Amino acid sequence: MPALMILRKNAGGEKPLNGAKVAGCTHITAQTAVLIETLAALGAQCRWAACNIFSTQNAVAAALAEGGISVFAWKGESEDDFWWCIDRCVAADSWQPDLILDDGGDLTHWIYKKYPNLFKNIKGIVEESVTGIYRLYQLSKANKLCVPAMNVNDSVTKQKFDTLYCCKESILDGLKRTTDIMFGGKQVVVCGYGEVGKGCCAALKGLGAIIYVTEVDPICALQACMNGLRVITLHEMIKHADIIISCTGNKSVITREHFDQMKNGCIVCNMGHSNTEIDLSSLRTEELKWQRVRPHVDHILWPDGKRVVLLAEGRLLNLSCSTVPSFVLSVTATTQALALIELYNAPQGRYKQDIYLLPKKMDEYVANLHLPMFDAHLTELTDEQAVYLNINKHGPFKPNYYRY
Amino acid sequence: MPALMILRKNAGGEKPLNGAKVAGCTHITAQTAVLIETLAALGAQCRWAACNIFSTQNAVAAALAEGGISVFAWKGESEDDFWWCIDRCVAADSWQPDLILDDGGDLTHWIYKKYPNLFKNIKGIVEESVTGIYRLYQLSKANKLCVPAMNVNDSVTKQKFDTLYCCKESILDGLKRTTDIMFGGKQVVVCGYGEVGKGCCAALKGLGAIIYVTEVDPICALQACMNGLRVITLHEMIKHADIIISCTGNKSVITREHFDQMKNGCIVCNMGHSNTEIDLSSLRTEELKWQRVRPHVDHILWPDGKRVVLLAEGRLLNLSCSTVPSFVLSVTATTQALALIELYNAPQGRYKQDIYLLPKKMDEYVANLHLPMFDAHLTELTDEQAVYLNINKHGPFKPNYYRY
Amino acid sequence: MPALMILRKNAGGEKPLNGAKVAGCTHITAQTAVLIETLAALGAQCRWAACNIFSTQNAVAAALAEGGISVFAWKGESEDDFWWCIDRCVAADSWQPDLILDDGGDLTHWIYKKYPNLFKNIKGIVEESVTGIYRLYQLSKANKLCVPAMNVNDSVTKQKFDTLYCCKESILDGLKRTTDIMFGGKQVVVCGYGEVGKGCCAALKGLGAIIYVTEVDPICALQACMNGLRVITLHEMIKHADIIISCTGNKSVITREHFDQMKNGCIVCNMGHSNTEIDLSSLRTEELKWQRVRPHVDHILWPDGKRVVLLAEGRLLNLSCSTVPSFVLSVTATTQALALIELYNAPQGRYKQDIYLLPKKMDEYVANLHLPMFDAHLTELTDEQAVYLNINKHGPFKPNYYRY
Amino acid sequence: MPALMILRKNAGGEKPLNGAKVAGCTHITAQTAVLIETLAALGAQCRWAACNIFSTQNAVAAALAEGGISVFAWKGESEDDFWWCIDRCVAADSWQPDLILDDGGDLTHWIYKKYPNLFKNIKGIVEESVTGIYRLYQLSKANKLCVPAMNVNDSVTKQKFDTLYCCKESILDGLKRTTDIMFGGKQVVVCGYGEVGKGCCAALKGLGAIIYVTEVDPICALQACMNGLRVITLHEMIKHADIIISCTGNKSVITREHFDQMKNGCIVCNMGHSNTEIDLSSLRTEELKWQRVRPHVDHILWPDGKRVVLLAEGRLLNLSCSTVPSFVLSVTATTQALALIELYNAPQGRYKQDIYLLPKKMDEYVANLHLPMFDAHLTELTDEQAVYLNINKHGPFKPNYYRY
Repeated sequence: MPALMILRKNAGGEKPLNGAKVAGCTHITAQTAVLIETLAALGAQCRWAACNIFSTQNAVAAALAEGGISVFAWKGESEDDFWWCIDRCVAADSWQPDLILDDGGDLTHWIYKKYPNLFKNIKGIVEESVTGIYRLYQLSKANKLCVPAMNVNDSVTKQKFDTLYCCKESILDGLKRTTDIMFGGKQVVVCGYGEVGKGCCAALKGLGAIIYVTEVDPICALQACMNGLRVITLHEMIKHADIIISCTGNKSVITREHFDQMKNGCIVCNMGHSNTEIDLSSLRTEELKWQRVRPHVDHILWPDGKRVVLLAEGRLLNLSCSTVPSFVLSVTATTQALALIELYNAPQGRYKQDIYLLPKKMDEYVANLHLPMFDAHLTELTDEQAVYLNINKHGPFKPNYYRY
Repeated sequence: MPALMILRKNAGGEKPLNGAKVAGCTHITAQTAVLIETLAALGAQCRWAACNIFSTQNAVAAALAEGGISVFAWKGESEDDFWWCIDRCVAADSWQPDLILDDGGDLTHWIYKKYPNLFKNIKGIVEESVTGIYRLYQLSKANKLCVPAMNVNDSVTKQKFDTLYCCKESILDGLKRTTDIMFGGKQVVVCGYGEVGKGCCAALKGLGAIIYVTEVDPICALQACMNGLRVITLHEMIKHADIIISCTGNKSVITREHFDQMKNGCIVCNMGHSNTEIDLSSLRTEELKWQRVRPHVDHILWPDGKRVVLLAEGRLLNLSCSTVPSFVLSVTATTQALALIELYNAPQGRYKQDIYLLPKKMDEYVANLHLPMFDAHLTELTDEQAVYLNINKHGPFKPNYYRY
Repeated sequence: MPALMILRKNAGGEKPLNGAKVAGCTHITAQTAVLIETLAALGAQCRWAACNIFSTQNAVAAALAEGGISVFAWKGESEDDFWWCIDRCVAADSWQPDLILDDGGDLTHWIYKKYPNLFKNIKGIVEESVTGIYRLYQLSKANKLCVPAMNVNDSVTKQKFDTLYCCKESILDGLKRTTDIMFGGKQVVVCGYGEVGKGCCAALKGLGAIIYVTEVDPICALQACMNGLRVITLHEMIKHADIIISCTGNKSVITREHFDQMKNGCIVCNMGHSNTEIDLSSLRTEELKWQRVRPHVDHILWPDGKRVVLLAEGRLLNLSCSTVPSFVLSVTATTQALALIELYNAPQGRYKQDIYLLPKKMDEYVANLHLPMFDAHLTELTDEQAVYLNINKHGPFKPNYYRY
Repeated sequence: MPALMILRKNAGGEKPLNGAKVAGCTHITAQTAVLIETLAALGAQCRWAACNIFSTQNAVAAALAEGGISVFAWKGESEDDFWWCIDRCVAADSWQPDLILDDGGDLTHWIYKKYPNLFKNIKGIVEESVTGIYRLYQLSKANKLCVPAMNVNDSVTKQKFDTLYCCKESILDGLKRTTDIMFGGKQVVVCGYGEVGKGCCAALKGLGAIIYVTEVDPICALQACMNGLRVITLHEMIKHADIIISCTGNKSVITREHFDQMKNGCIVCNMGHSNTEIDLSSLRTEELKWQRVRPHVDHILWPDGKRVVLLAEGRLLNLSCSTVPSFVLSVTATTQALALIELYNAPQGRYKQDIYLLPKKMDEYVANLHLPMFDAHLTELTDEQAVYLNINKHGPFKPNYYRY
């Protein structure tokens, strides 16, 4: 996570989070540890819980605790443990959070439910996940959002770097660790051509797969066409596909009806955001046999001997069966840190009880902090050019609606 | 332009532009003729001038006139002719425009200057060019924008299809028609990694060029890095480059200082938006000899015998030395037609004296009209899925800030 | 043609073709002029005719003549002229050729037919074309080959550089200059996946076309599969193809039966070696109308209004409608020069009355002469490594059967 | 291994290896088991040993034995065990081999050393490895080769499918399982641009790495140039490389001198044929510390804190840290089976005491057997076309020197 290191170094002696009390609820891993330590180094006091009952790395939690951070998390929490840990982050007598860093919205939900008065003191929520953002928008529509919220999930750097490249870099890996598939010449259906689907397609194409895309959105469909991918319905290709990858964020994209038509040996997996993409319930029937052949690899057998390979139990393939590159985590962690700094230091009135995207200048700063890893050298605008373009020579360089 | 044909057909007997008086100022080519005829078929009366003194195809203008459209344009107009033609579009006693379709802002400018009263009657302006949009924002900032304006230039379909693929499809062609360059292994510097630069890089990479990118914006720079392109300053590579392509929209990107360091035989061209990208004035000096070796190909000779190849006089390479695919023109023309329909039919109050992006639903519709050319088949959301995603099953499918 | 220049320079004062009399029959263009001048600079006396009645560049022929080379060729020769010119190259009383440089085998054929006694004096034939090689093998099988022949066509550099990259670099250009096709998302059938087909596929894939391959050879078919191309029969895809490109070297690959099933607007062209690939005779019938819409572009109209676009009259697209990069011509010309030098200087007995591939060391030398254009730096083997690999540290580096 | 299944099925009731006694020495894995069983099904009696003391899958050996095959092999043999096992394959009183299937040449070597008389009875040797082929050529040069040998290693299918795609498919996997590297934008030096290097480069380029190639052979170097890769010496890039991959088949390609100049965090691995490519001995010194951070991942630490990551102890990365796709193994196993059949059934005199490449027709047959996995459909030549091309309509389709 060198970008966070540069961030700390750039801060010099200054402590932009001086005195801030940050309550966090995220995965607790080596990488988030660097984030938490960075927040502390910038002046914050942190209390932290896990956003998932399985993902905590106990050694990391222990090391953070030893370093004086209050961490309430362990691998394999029960449901009750989970909420108890979250409660411990916010319910300390002598400690009221100024800032919320949430991943999925559970911490935010808990405060709404149990300690709504805390919001009086809270300067804002930083949320990174699709689910958490969805919940914030529901609150906002219901006029119940009572502090500013920063939507990190839809920042340029999150969407165009974390999401796209995380998938591009992990799809091959996830498939290779679970199967001995060769990609060259395989017919692959990718359901959904958003950033996740685009990443999967790019990687698979690089290894010689033949890719077909399904889409509901005509704009994304046209992008697929122009990039040389056939846009079809799943029904059209279902009998020919060697691999089917769900990348939609939708539910019931691959159903029993599809499974019944797949060819022998077809591999099915999910790179989308939830485990609803593949309708597994319809496969849990008498006539189909399930065989666990290795961790994360199930063979589903039809009465006629047909065998379909289901990976990662239909859950996110790259979380279970691949490593997520540090670079990708670094982009998001840096964005989260900057969003907290912005909310903490923003002058009164800049942010209202609404959901905001990160100011473009910060998105640009996050990108900037990651360029040294590529030994990349930016060109600086001359004064004359800045005048010509009518922008500040140090950015922001693009209007807010720019799509990249 | 099959999409415009489908648009007409989809309209059925209805005439969504019934009675609309459209004053237009665009290039006058076979493709815009289809647009104008489409507007007429949908009920509009049109008066048209050219936005460029050179680009009018006289036969097209004649054919339109014969079809009853009032066209004021010919190839090779003088400056005075140019403004006279524009004047004729708006200054008819018995004819006051309801809608303006502009490309570059000259028509809009003329009305502001000469007939500001006409704006009382005008329902809106549709503008497609970077320059025209820039002028509209200047008006808006100065509180002088007195009708709604639709920014077609920044619509998804314009940026992500017209701009990107037009450049991707024409850069190789432009270079091949002017030189006998082989792309494999050539070291190419692409200045700017926006949609234009991305398109050029994609095409050149496909043919085996080795590409280096210069950027001022760290986000675009990081995109280049992740896509496997070295981000450098022009200065670093200037002595090694075989080809230098300017794609910035900026001015003085390639200067005399750069030219003096280029190697013998280096090819220089411009794919950006204006002829300011290459600082040609500094090359018009005594000690440098200019040789016109073919149309659009100049050799500039240094006293020591070094020769630099300048294409298209530093103006847009693909306009002069390539064909623009109909598909690309079709995307923009369809968007323009829909923008006019929207402005004409919008209920009072939907649009104020401001600059708007095309409603997403229309962007999606433009994409939809182009899918049949690819024999692409969209998947339709089930009711259950639409509820799950909390969107209308016929779109719009994405939030406005979605970047594609 | 910088490689030929380096070749001359490397020769220093030596004249490896000193006294050699070379009779040549090739296209006469600016590039072959450099070859002929190089042969002269290396000591040869040359007499030259054209191998094609149309391809002579008259200015080049004049310039060569002015430089003292005996050139018998002009653009637009009649059949009689053609053979008269060839005759003049060999039938001089005071001049008997030592070496033959042929392209297509007509010069060789003429000597066999008219002056077989000349072969007593001839040290060898260098032949570059598929057709010429075929004719030599026919002679050899009939035991009529009476001098050594060097098969330049099948040298590594010819096949793996000239053929592959010439096609890769020119297919897009040829299509763009004749049509305004956009490649993104187009469905293209490439008939034949040899070096020509591989080059076409690589270029088209780089621009986002969706490619299907037909093959008769299972090895080439499997290569296409592994590279992510669907291998189908032309019949399977004929109704869906946007573009069909013949690259087989075979005859009647695209027939009337195929044409009848093509969709409206389908584009058909030939990149293979002869004009037999497309069975045009079956299209010259009453019910089909032919329209010449531009040079090299014919529209063939079916009674129901269907229109098929035929490019370059079914002849080689890239010869008619594209430029061939100098680099590619340089590779072949350098190979020809080296083959002549080898035959002229080979010790008695090294070559018999047989057909030979270029010695690997010369293929490597040709490649070496072209590396400076890419600023490429070879690594030199250490003595220890050469011993380990059991090869000479200056090459040849590979066994003769190595495929590259 | 579906191709072997099709081979068995195609044989119908015939047993082309009826009565053949095959002594084999290969890796003993699930895939070679299918080969051995296929040989048995085609009529052969087999006795088998392992060619490597570590690679035997004991369960496979047991299953083969249970099926009646004489297998002498287990995981973790001692040096003495190794030779004893080999001895058991050939030294049976009542059993003299007709055919040798060798991988590395140890079995062949043992017979030469201990039982030279057996060669009187042996119809030929089939050898697949680089090392084994090298040893056969040494024998041949010394006039000691006393039976025909079939060089499977240099068959088209081995080189152009097994070697190329095995590396292309496994390099990413090998790096991902051992590190959490992200490939996008990484600067990678690939030493050697043969089939192994070509495969690695293709895969890495697909994921956005920036690749530099080192080469000793100018032809391969020129191929790299044309494919858009910079050809440099390792020395030029050593300070900038993020990853260095050795693919040469040579020794001491990466030396201590290089290691001393690498940047902090540089990853070094070997995809070439032996563990001599990286000069590890020079790294086993006092001042460098070695840290085993995970299986197959060593960190080497310099006194100044610099850390270089060495994968797989410098041995073949893909053997240790990746899975080899069945498809690739299938190609080679099928080739081996056909080579044995050919040698066993060849009429007296077809093969002499020499080393042969597989007859092209068999190479084509191997390819053919693998096409069904891709649902690929070959085009059949018409009689007229076969006459035109002067080849048999069922192949072979190319001359022996064709390079693919």
